[in-house]
Amino acid sequence: MEKGRILLAVTGFHPQRWRELLSAEREVVLEPDGAKDPSITYAVVWKQKPNLLSSLPNLRAIFSIGAGVDHIFADPGLPDVPIVKVVADNLTQYMTEYVVWRVLDHHRHGLLYRSQQPKKIWHEPQQRPAGDISVGIMGLGNLGRAAASVLLSLGFAVNGWSRNDRPMQGVATYSGEAGLIPFLKATDILVVLLPLTPDTQGIINYGVLKELRKRNGLGGSVLINAGRGRLQKDADIVRALDDGTLKEASLDVFEVEPLPKTSPLWSHPKVFVTPHAAATSDPMHLAPIMLRQMDAFERGEKLDNLVDRKAGY
Amino acid sequence: MEKGRILLAVTGFHPQRWRELLSAEREVVLEPDGAKDPSITYAVVWKQKPNLLSSLPNLRAIFSIGAGVDHIFADPGLPDVPIVKVVADNLTQYMTEYVVWRVLDHHRHGLLYRSQQPKKIWHEPQQRPAGDISVGIMGLGNLGRAAASVLLSLGFAVNGWSRNDRPMQGVATYSGEAGLIPFLKATDILVVLLPLTPDTQGIINYGVLKELRKRNGLGGSVLINAGRGRLQKDADIVRALDDGTLKEASLDVFEVEPLPKTSPLWSHPKVFVTPHAAATSDPMHLAPIMLRQMDAFERGEKLDNLVDRKAGY
Repeated sequence: MEKGRILLAVTGFHPQRWRELLSAEREVVLEPDGAKDPSITYAVVWKQKPNLLSSLPNLRAIFSIGAGVDHIFADPGLPDVPIVKVVADNLTQYMTEYVVWRVLDHHRHGLLYRSQQPKKIWHEPQQRPAGDISVGIMGLGNLGRAAASVLLSLGFAVNGWSRNDRPMQGVATYSGEAGLIPFLKATDILVVLLPLTPDTQGIINYGVLKELRKRNGLGGSVLINAGRGRLQKDADIVRALDDGTLKEASLDVFEVEPLPKTSPLWSHPKVFVTPHAAATSDPMHLAPIMLRQMDAFERGEKLDNLVDRKAGY
Repeated sequence: MEKGRILLAVTGFHPQRWRELLSAEREVVLEPDGAKDPSITYAVVWKQKPNLLSSLPNLRAIFSIGAGVDHIFADPGLPDVPIVKVVADNLTQYMTEYVVWRVLDHHRHGLLYRSQQPKKIWHEPQQRPAGDISVGIMGLGNLGRAAASVLLSLGFAVNGWSRNDRPMQGVATYSGEAGLIPFLKATDILVVLLPLTPDTQGIINYGVLKELRKRNGLGGSVLINAGRGRLQKDADIVRALDDGTLKEASLDVFEVEPLPKTSPLWSHPKVFVTPHAAATSDPMHLAPIMLRQMDAFERGEKLDNLVDRKAGY
């Protein structure tokens, strides 16, 4: 079987860099060229245009660069071909770094110290041991489990919530709708790493934030969202921060990205904003992985990290 | 043997809290009382007054609350009794948190993001994988090794330097004067956890900072000092930051503490200041450990965590 051609449609992701790396081994057509092209075998995509995928008559597989695939299911004419989630080892590593970084920054009073420094205030708030703080991770896939493992090694209590129960040593796991409230009530720092599906859209709303544990050594509960922006209601987060339901938040994702300049989150003193940068897909690392997968597929082997269409992730 | 009495002289460390906890099991005299008192068996100290220890005729052991013992050796008439460094498990844990927190904050461009947020700038700098960054830890005792272990699990390259070689799996170790320059030349983020001795005083000076690795993904080298303030030359750090020798610094300790309001470090945009809070001695955790040690000592058992007088730590 000859080497299939690639259509590259990666909005906001340095397409030239991807083209350079992929074209070392295969022919690459860069969107907006390539629509309806019968010579295209693979689509490498991120937030591609609607109906682009359905226009390719001989498409055999779709590769999403990044852990989220909701943008693919948003395509109304999505063809029935395998969808590969390209989750590199170092994407997991980057996400673990982000989660551990943000958890420690809230736990160790980073926002307070940064507000004291310009005023030259030498004051140490009470510092609780990590074991008194429980970090609750929503989403216990590869990303959630890797972060949980480092948080455990730092001594934090760790809870996990997922759609179906996913036991993990040292982690108190909860699952499904019935497990959500008990999970929240046992959680001081909520870390969101869920996939975006019809079931999870808007799940991080005021009612959910209200259930987080109040008795804790942080002086309030904390939200960290490194999953997808539409899991959360931006306005509910602002409300929860303003009325003390939440003490602080670290947000890497937002309902609309880039975060509009009119959003009150930008200037909120209790919010730390990053530009969807928690775990960037590094072309240098991912392109070779993707090329090896295409080679294997053409030898008749199975693709790795296939998306479950029914589950939606 | 009856239960020995304790003299408590802990400057700046909530003496009332310590007294409350220790006096549950033993008689406690609070400084300034107790000088010359022949009934005192133990001194529990932090930056006690000069000549206090030498005034106690029947002193049998000294307990330092905190990992640093330089304040004890500063006493000109220090009696020849065992000195115990009370390093609790959770002191090591707190220090590990601080080191990992600060390493991640520099690695993940925390200072840049915090400067962008008020300007509503949605921009992601290039993020290098942890494996491209080497963290060099000066001081490979309990604290250094615990921090190294979590940094390794996050994927960082880790170097270590100590007076005598202390091998550790996964860590490139260097030792003694001959190893210092090679260690610095291989280090992007320098973490200082050394004890303060005549040999180490002022070791973090401009000449040393100048040797740090320039080729790295951080855009410059970084200093993190969580050891003792007099290991560093505050003015040299300012100079190194201003001329680009250092990119950023996190400082928990200073030549004079509290850091004087006149210090340029307070308002330096590349410096993150904490008030000697990296690893606070928690009385709730340490007092019982100390009381157990006194009981054991009175049963004729050996004291743990004894200071080596010759080494000075």
